[in-house]
Order: sequence, then C-alpha cells, then structure tokens
Amino acid sequence: MTPAPLLDSIRKPADIRGLAPAELESLAGQMRQRIFEAVSTNGGHLASNLGVVELTIALHYCYDFGPYPGGPDWLMFDVGHQCYPHKMLTGRAGQFGTLRKRGSIAGFPVPEESPYDLFAVGHAGTAISTAVGMARGSQQQGKNNHVVAVVGDASIVNGLAFEGLNNAGTLKRQMLIILNDNGMSISQPQGAFSEYLERVRVSTTYEEFKRFSEKIVHRLPTTVGHAIEHAWDALCSSVKSAMWAGQMFEAMGIKYMGPIDGHDLPGLINFLAEIKHVDKPVVLHVKTQKGNGYEITKNEPTKFHSPAAFRVEGSPLVQNGCRVEINKGTGKNWTTAFADAAIAVAKRDSRVVTLTAAMPDGTGLSKFEKEIPERFIDTGICESHLVAMAAGMAKTGLRPIAAVYSTFIQRAFDQVWQEVALNKLPVIFALDRAGYVGDDGAVHHGFCDLAFLRPLPGMTLIAPTDEAELNRALRLSLKLDTAVAIRYPRDNVPTCNFEEEVLPELREQASGEWELGKSRMLIRHDGEADATLVVYGALAGSVLTAAELLSADGVKVDVVDARFCKPIDGAMLARVLRPGHPVLTVEDHSLENGFGSAVLEYANSHRLPTDQITRLGMPDRMIVHMTRKEQLTEVGLDPAGIVSSVKQAIERAGERSDVAPMPAERYV
Amino acid sequence: MTPAPLLDSIRKPADIRGLAPAELESLAGQMRQRIFEAVSTNGGHLASNLGVVELTIALHYCYDFGPYPGGPDWLMFDVGHQCYPHKMLTGRAGQFGTLRKRGSIAGFPVPEESPYDLFAVGHAGTAISTAVGMARGSQQQGKNNHVVAVVGDASIVNGLAFEGLNNAGTLKRQMLIILNDNGMSISQPQGAFSEYLERVRVSTTYEEFKRFSEKIVHRLPTTVGHAIEHAWDALCSSVKSAMWAGQMFEAMGIKYMGPIDGHDLPGLINFLAEIKHVDKPVVLHVKTQKGNGYEITKNEPTKFHSPAAFRVEGSPLVQNGCRVEINKGTGKNWTTAFADAAIAVAKRDSRVVTLTAAMPDGTGLSKFEKEIPERFIDTGICESHLVAMAAGMAKTGLRPIAAVYSTFIQRAFDQVWQEVALNKLPVIFALDRAGYVGDDGAVHHGFCDLAFLRPLPGMTLIAPTDEAELNRALRLSLKLDTAVAIRYPRDNVPTCNFEEEVLPELREQASGEWELGKSRMLIRHDGEADATLVVYGALAGSVLTAAELLSADGVKVDVVDARFCKPIDGAMLARVLRPGHPVLTVEDHSLENGFGSAVLEYANSHRLPTDQITRLGMPDRMIVHMTRKEQLTEVGLDPAGIVSSVKQAIERAGERSDVAPMPAERYV
Repeated sequence: MTPAPLLDSIRKPADIRGLAPAELESLAGQMRQRIFEAVSTNGGHLASNLGVVELTIALHYCYDFGPYPGGPDWLMFDVGHQCYPHKMLTGRAGQFGTLRKRGSIAGFPVPEESPYDLFAVGHAGTAISTAVGMARGSQQQGKNNHVVAVVGDASIVNGLAFEGLNNAGTLKRQMLIILNDNGMSISQPQGAFSEYLERVRVSTTYEEFKRFSEKIVHRLPTTVGHAIEHAWDALCSSVKSAMWAGQMFEAMGIKYMGPIDGHDLPGLINFLAEIKHVDKPVVLHVKTQKGNGYEITKNEPTKFHSPAAFRVEGSPLVQNGCRVEINKGTGKNWTTAFADAAIAVAKRDSRVVTLTAAMPDGTGLSKFEKEIPERFIDTGICESHLVAMAAGMAKTGLRPIAAVYSTFIQRAFDQVWQEVALNKLPVIFALDRAGYVGDDGAVHHGFCDLAFLRPLPGMTLIAPTDEAELNRALRLSLKLDTAVAIRYPRDNVPTCNFEEEVLPELREQASGEWELGKSRMLIRHDGEADATLVVYGALAGSVLTAAELLSADGVKVDVVDARFCKPIDGAMLARVLRPGHPVLTVEDHSLENGFGSAVLEYANSHRLPTDQITRLGMPDRMIVHMTRKEQLTEVGLDPAGIVSSVKQAIERAGERSDVAPMPAERYV
Repeated sequence: MTPAPLLDSIRKPADIRGLAPAELESLAGQMRQRIFEAVSTNGGHLASNLGVVELTIALHYCYDFGPYPGGPDWLMFDVGHQCYPHKMLTGRAGQFGTLRKRGSIAGFPVPEESPYDLFAVGHAGTAISTAVGMARGSQQQGKNNHVVAVVGDASIVNGLAFEGLNNAGTLKRQMLIILNDNGMSISQPQGAFSEYLERVRVSTTYEEFKRFSEKIVHRLPTTVGHAIEHAWDALCSSVKSAMWAGQMFEAMGIKYMGPIDGHDLPGLINFLAEIKHVDKPVVLHVKTQKGNGYEITKNEPTKFHSPAAFRVEGSPLVQNGCRVEINKGTGKNWTTAFADAAIAVAKRDSRVVTLTAAMPDGTGLSKFEKEIPERFIDTGICESHLVAMAAGMAKTGLRPIAAVYSTFIQRAFDQVWQEVALNKLPVIFALDRAGYVGDDGAVHHGFCDLAFLRPLPGMTLIAPTDEAELNRALRLSLKLDTAVAIRYPRDNVPTCNFEEEVLPELREQASGEWELGKSRMLIRHDGEADATLVVYGALAGSVLTAAELLSADGVKVDVVDARFCKPIDGAMLARVLRPGHPVLTVEDHSLENGFGSAVLEYANSHRLPTDQITRLGMPDRMIVHMTRKEQLTEVGLDPAGIVSSVKQAIERAGERSDVAPMPAERYV
C-alpha cells in the first residue's frame, strides 16, 4: 500500500474533527487511493465505496458514532458494501492491504470486528426499519441518540425500505435517512421509482427551487394579461417540480431535503450540522457518483461494482489514461454455465423467460439479456416481487426461470410458498451462490435453502454436479409442471463432465436425461466397496478427488450423485443403506435440515438402517470471510477432510459390529 | 338460509349482465343477507365482505373473469378474505350455509374449488405483483387479457405491494388496481401512509378537483393586485390537493383516479366500463365501508372482521336494534394465555415491548395494549419491518416480543436471519397459530417454522405444553441473550397444568423454572415402559390422553415433554433411545425438517439408535379447511391416532428383533 500519512494518523473518528478543510480534502484523496489499491489487489466493492468518501467523512465529522454499545449516535448502513470509508476512519485503514482475506477485515460491517460497526448487514433495504427500531428504543428509554441510516438508491425501491419509511413517518423525533443516490442501483436502476428519482435528479436542487419560487412570487402581482399565463405555467411547473422531488417522502410524513452534492465536503458538513438537531424524520437526498475520483471507475461503474482483483497499466486518474485487466480466474464458473444453459433452453422453448433482482451480472443473465432481451426482466432489489410476478407469468403459461442467489431467496420465501407452491405453479428457481460464498462472508452464504424449501408440498429440489448435468436439470425442470429449485455454488464448474470419467457400464445411466427422483452412480465396486459417498450437488468434484486418494490407500468407495433432494431417490437409499456399510452424505448446506436430514428421514420412514450414516455439511456456526476453498477446508468438506471422514466411518463400522446392545435398564 | 330467489338464480357471472339496475340493487341486498347469515352460523370474515358487494357485482358486470384457465379477464384478490361476494356470483351461493365446513366451500379463493378462483391466497400484499406477472405474461404472448387486482388499504402499506406498484409503473399496457379503501386495515390503520390515505379520503374527489381547477384557471387572467395573491393560494392548494391524492401513485408512473363511492352501484359500473380499455396501469381509489348494510357491523367493523359464529336477537339493520352474542367457545385459548403471560413479564421487566403486524386481536396483544399502551406497537401488515425494527430496539437494550402467526413469520424470514440471528439480538418471537389452524385452511397453517428457524445459529426454539409452561418459557426467554421462538397453536390451553397430574416424584422437575435445553418428564415407568412418547409442544394433551387409553389396554408409555427443539435435550435422547425400545416423536409441524428430524439428526450425530423412532407430524400435503380437531384426526395426531401408532411401533419392535440383517451382496 502507498503510504498515506494523514489517513494512517486517524485512529478514531474524533481525530478528523481537528483537521482543516484542506486537510479533509487531502484525507479524502488518500482514502480513495487506498480503496482503489486494496480492491485492485484483493477484489471487493469499488465504485460504491469511491462514491461515499466525502459523505462518510462529513458524517463522522458531524456526529459521534460509536464506539458501541453506547453510541451516543447510531449509524446504520443499508447494504454493507459502502462501508470501506467508514472502516478507514474507525481504526482499520492499515488493514486494507489484506481486505477480505482470512483473518483480516471483512468487506461488510461486522460488530465483532470493530466497536464502530453497529449491525452486520449485506442484504439490502433493511437499514431504515432497523434505524426506526433504534430510534424508538432510544425514545422508549428517555434518551436522545441521533440515528442515521445511509441508504442507496438501489435499496430504496425495496419493499422493506418502503415499510421502514412508512413507519418512520410516524416517529416524533430525530431520524436522518440519507438517500445516497448514485443513479446506478447495482447495475441499472429498475422500476418506476428509479425513473422518478431520475426526474428529481435532473430537476432543480432544493436551494435553486427556493430562490426560483421566491422570484416568481415577487414578480407575479405586477404581471397582467398574457404574461400571467406564462407565470401560471412557470408557477405550476415549479410547484410541481418541488413537490415532485419530495412527494414520495412527504406523503409518508417525512421531511424531504435536497438533492445536494455528495462530493462537496464543506457543503455536506454545513448541511449535516444544520439538520442534526431537526426533531423529526428527514430524508436528505445526496447525489453521489459511483466510482468518483477515477476515470475508469466513473465511466464503468457496473464493471467496477464488485470486481475481482485487477491490474492497472498507466494512470486511472486520466481519461483513457490506463489499461485495466481484471483477473478472470481460470476456468468457467457455474454462473456462466447457468447462463449458457438458460440461453440453450430458451432458444428451444419460447415459454422461457428469465428474471433477476438487480443481479444481471451476478446471476449471469446479462449474457441472456444480450441474446434474448425481450424475455429478460430485472426487477431491481425486489425478490418478493420477482417471485410473485414469476408466479403470475407461470399462470399465463410462461416458464419463468427466477435466478436468485440462495441467500436472497430467503427474502421471498413467503411468495415461494403462497404464490408458487400453494398454487402449484411451474416456476424454476436457479439458486446461485448456494453453499459457502468465500470472501463475502457469513452474510451471503447460501446455507439453508433446502431447510425452508423442502417442506413445501410439490417442490422439486435438485442439484447438478457438472455443466452437462446443469443442462439436463434445466431440461427436466421444463418438463415438470411444478416448482423446481436448482442449487449451485459460487465456484468453477468441473473442467470435465463426470460421466466421461465413469466406468463404461455406468456411462449410459450417468449421461442420460434426468428422470424425476433418480440418482446416478459415478463409481461402483459391485458390492466390494468399503463405503458409499452420496453427494448432493457441486461437491461431487471433491468427492471424486477423495475417492481417488482413498483408492491410492486401498480404500474402495462407491460414489452416488444424488441429483434430487426432493423427491429423494428411495430405491438408491434402499440399495446403499445396508447393515454395517458406512454411508456418507456430502453437501454444502447446513447440517440442520439439509440433504443428510432428508436421507435420515427417508431411511427412518422406510425402516432402513441409519446407524452407519455420517452426514458431512456446514456446521451450525457462522463461517467468516476467506476463500471458499478455505471455508470448505475449515469444515472438512475439502477432499482431505472427506478422506478423513470416510476412514473414520469405516473404522467405526468395524468397531460397532463388536459392540453388544446395552441392556435397557441402563437408560432409565 | 333465507331463500334468495334472484341470488340463487345466478349460476355464473354472465347471468348478472341481463339484470336491470333495480334488480342489481336487489341482488346486492340478497348477497349481504346471505353473507351475514352464513358468518353468523359458521364464523368467517364478515365486515370486509359486506363492504365489497357492489364492487364485486360491478367488476363481474364489466369484465369477463374466468372460467380459468383462459380468462379472458383475470381477477386477483389481495388477501382472500373479501372473496365471498365473488364466490356467490360464480355458482357457489347455495353452499354458504356450510361455509368453511369440511367438504364445503373455503373462506379463501381456492382454484381447486372453482374455475373462477384464480389464485389461492390468504397472505396480504401480493396481488399487485402477481397481477403484474399476469399482465406481462399476456403481453409476452401477444394477448390482451384485462388484469384487475383488488387491494385493500391494509395491504397497500405492505412492502411487496409497493414493489408491485413500482414495477407496474413500467408496464405499457392495461392493468387496473382497485384500492378498496375502507379506512380500517384489519384493526386500525398504521403508519404514515394510512394517514395519507385519510387525508385523501377527506379531500376533494377527482371530479370535484377538475371542476374546481378549471374554474380557477378561467378566473386567473382577469384578476389583478391583491386578488392574485388569493388566486395563488387557491391555486397552490388545489394543485397540491390533487397531487396529494395521486402523488404516491403517480410518482411511480401509475395513473390515479378517484376516490369514488364503492357503494354506488350504477356509478361503479359506469366508471369501470369507462376505464376498462385504458391501456396503462391505473389505480382506482374506491371508498367502501367495512360492514356496510348492517348497523352492528358498520359500527364495530373490527369486532366483526372475523367473528366466530354468533347469535342475533332483534334487527341488525336498525341502529341499536339488536343484541349480538358471539360464540366465545369454552375454555381459554393460547392467544389469551400468551397475552396474560406477556403482561405478566412486562410488568416485572421494563425492557419488554410487544409488537404485532396488524393482528392486535389475533395475537391477543390488544389486551396488552390496554394495560401497557406505551410499550405496544402495531406496524400494520409489515412483518419484515416489524422484525427489523425489533432488532433495532433489541440493540438499544429493550426486549421486544414480536407476536406473529407462524404462517406470517415466513414473510420476515430474511430479517429473522440477518437482523436478528446474524446480529445475535435477543428478540423473542411468539409464534401463534403454529400447526393446523382449522377453518382458515392451507394458506394459514403454521407448518414449517422449525424448518427455517432451526438452521439459524444461536436460535433457541421452544414450545410450551400448557399455560404454566408458556409463562416459564417467556421467563426463560428473557434471561437468554439470544433470539427465541416460542410456538403454540390456535387452540385452547389445557384446562389444568400438566404438572398437577404427574407422579409425585416427577412433580418437582415438571413444575420448576426452565433450564436451557432441558426437557421434563410427564409419565415415567422406571424402565418398564413399552414405549416412550416425546412430544414437542401443545399436542401434549393428546399424548397424555393417548397414554391413558393405552394404559387401559395394558400398554405402558413414558411421556417426555421436550420443551426444546433447539438446543435439543441430548441427555434425554441418550436415555430414551435404546435398542429395541420404541420412541415416538409427536409434533404439529411438517414431518419434513420438523422436531422429529432434529431428533434423528442428534441421534445420528451422537451414534444413538434410530431404528425404533417413529415420527408423527404433518404429512407433506396441503390439508384443507375443516376444524383443527378434524385436521389432527385426518393425519393421525388425535389421541386415537397416537394410540394406534404406538401399538404399531411396539408390534414392529417385537418383529424386528427376529429379522436377520440382509447380506451385503443383495444391495448392489
């Protein structure tokens, strides 16, 4: 990291209050440089953080946020991905060289990391509601803490944000909502409200309006005849313009101010100081520029929203001054494989439409949009709406594919239940980022989709193990008349398709089209196996590697690719669950209510032996940010961990046969 | 049922189109009478349905809704509890005598019941989004079906409704959203938006405004001097008034019309016919009166929102003309027991606040509000907001108790995860209506809360079996520093507390304060029992009855009250799970990922025998409306069903010991 003496001298927010205006500007420059360097080295959220440097400085200058618990002032971020400047001003500037690396600082606010981080947050739209709760809590206890929520324009369209505004409007005390409007959402803004903000953005600012309307009023009484008609028009449009800007918020009882320039540091400080003690809820509309400070990030804010590490040649400060190469990684990832598969089925089936909630790049659907734009919809960060809308589309005969991260489908669970499952509609859910997500950390793991989806009657739950299987999974889904959820991780697809590696006698069943509720075998030893591994989904690669390692040690394992969690392949379970034979289930899902639990339930209901079952999966604790590989290793889901679990299971099976059942009286 | 010749002659919506205006009015009267009679006999939703009689007639008069599939026009209800008039006009008027009874018509729309019911729906806020999906589906396929969504003012404040509006604003085709504004929500409207609607309601109507503003415009050019200042004021306020009415909607790109009178049948028909072909999204604001037609229901719409069966003496048509006695049932229900318990803890602990999402009566908290109004909040139908706000309050040191039906907490799952569990905040969830809910049917069963809550790290899941236990559960929850969910059903609490019935030697442990993760025993036979029943929650009463019945047949069972699903009582499981000893888990939760699965998982992880475990719970299919008792009987969760399962388990245990393990080669 380039030395930044001023920045590195800031240990706590109070340190910036002694700085002169010019020093604050210089601090902003040093912060930008460090953010840029940190993200180019480690990957992370770039454009959004570059956009809030001045805003963050101004906030910490005017308020007294933390250390918590206590306060006295409380700062909430909506979506954590605009918290880097905040982390820098709260003693963590020195750690940006290892941002998002194991053991270093996270990319989202984490209370365990710093007493200046109030809430762990990464899902959008929640800050206003949480802040309303803090405001009420403060009031209830006779205190007067200032509460500030920083909300992006991508979050404000979320229903929960609206609910929060609606409730904030009934508060009878201070609460500041900063609408950080960078006009970008995560990719392009979606929905009518974004268009509304766009109109506000190009309209006059608050101060301009005040001056203008005063002028009009003073001019009016001296005007007669036709002139008054012009005045009428001007009047109407100026009244309209002002009301327009604030109408959404003022309709909900919230004072609206702005828009003001989010990069004018002295202006921000003056404005914030002035409104700090307003004793009612206020929305302050701040215009910021995503990627501000660097030409390349300003020009391509979507590309630089959350880039992988990248290399810069030349100067990023100058227009066309540099060449940037983003680390593409090697190999093809599941996201791209899904996009290709979706395009393939959509080309053959005109009923297919695809939907994303503000994640066209994250879900791969931007590729789909390029090929078949008329059958692609981006709803913005509105997962509940997306699912209900998909149900409506399915009802008309379309076949919507809703591509939503596993962690975000949690936000639409009730719609998956009521609009889709209860109504027996054939919506296909493509759950990307299922399992550990790596450096985004706990707030984004897709750890519980099977838990909440499996109790829904009629739901089909599937997980492919390689790219050919993903295609087959999608083809089967389109043949079914019920809802399907397909899960796959944030990872590369295997470099080959597994059926190419299986025994000649297994190849036919392994490469055939999917049949509902039927698994496939990848390795078989004709009854000679020492154990069987039943894998659900993308950890199949690790399982096959483990099988090779075991084979080298003289241990033979059968490997079953389960394909289905619901309906589960009961015939397969009846084959593999035999007395004395160790069976290990492998999944990157919580061990609570995961695939292994489905196996236990089936075995229990059908009186199959379960005492030799070992379930491998995600343990019941939060796993923090590090690479996905490190996370899998940490919980024993890497090949070595699987090898070790298999050996233990075999050893235990050997022991067990010697143990006599305990007499009943021992147990009372 | 009183004969209603005109109503009973209507077999399908088209039949009403031949009626003269006076006949339509008469039809409306007959419909009201039947609704009133049906609900007084069977219980159900009364006031809301009385309010939409004319609106429903007008809709079916002007559009061609169903039979589905097909259409040609599509009608969506937001919350089904305003669908009775619709059911009457679509061939089901004759069945209202057995409304909500087993085998008769349901209280909510059910596509399986009639080809005129489009979506099964009972959770609020979803119709606009679903309708947008249908509109897009129609457009995508080059069709032009009219789409109409009827939304109540209680639903429009829901975040999902806002998301739907936001997305509807980008539609380039017809879509009609009827805002059925009865000014009541389910109880009293909550939040700033309700206040906004209230202002609209008292402001001028659309037509009045048009006339007024035209007058002003024509007067303006001839006015000079001071007069113009008055004109300016009038102008501003008139512009403001009109924009006010529509601003929320027009900001989102949706044409706003109204408010119009929802009980003026000719007016409604004219208006709907006129706007039918408007090719852009329109919100039509219709003012209705909840309970319209009867004095008692008009005057007490909350009491008559969803009453049990009731008896009327005198005439309900005349002010103070009758006396009404609502069937209170016998005994005390869990809802009231919870309210009493919450009041009790709140009186001792000033940190306690209670929250409901528009269900003060349904959750019992109206009783709490009367006693401690300053620590009670009703958010309106905004469950996500409620949970995020509770997290904020908990962060400030308060102890919020969020009382939300099990089925509705599904709507806030992501906030339970991110704001509460991830942030380790001590919010207490009181999940009423857990399990089968009786005559409200499939859309309201609380069938999967354990499934989605158990994978959340740090979550404590508990279920009391009687009223004393509910109090202990709440007291323990307040001692914990983590989130807790307490589930209990829509049913009566047992008439006695079970510890009064247990053996003297068990009484002390059964009546003591709760210890985290510790179960209690209710019946024990000192190692002599033929089987053990482990019950989670309120089915304990049925289990104890079953134990008595079994005892009369010479079968001895131990009964364990599990108290905890997470953390589960492992020491207890280690005692009861012994080779050859049948153990039955009993719960009113889905067998998929329920309490029984938690038992299987624990046993599997700790190498306890599972082959004698039988899980009793809700099967993987929708159970329709009938009484809760009938539902429990249908799935074998009544005492007789439990007796029969216990006997089978004992019989199987006897057989099993004779079965030799199959040889491994059989399984390949």
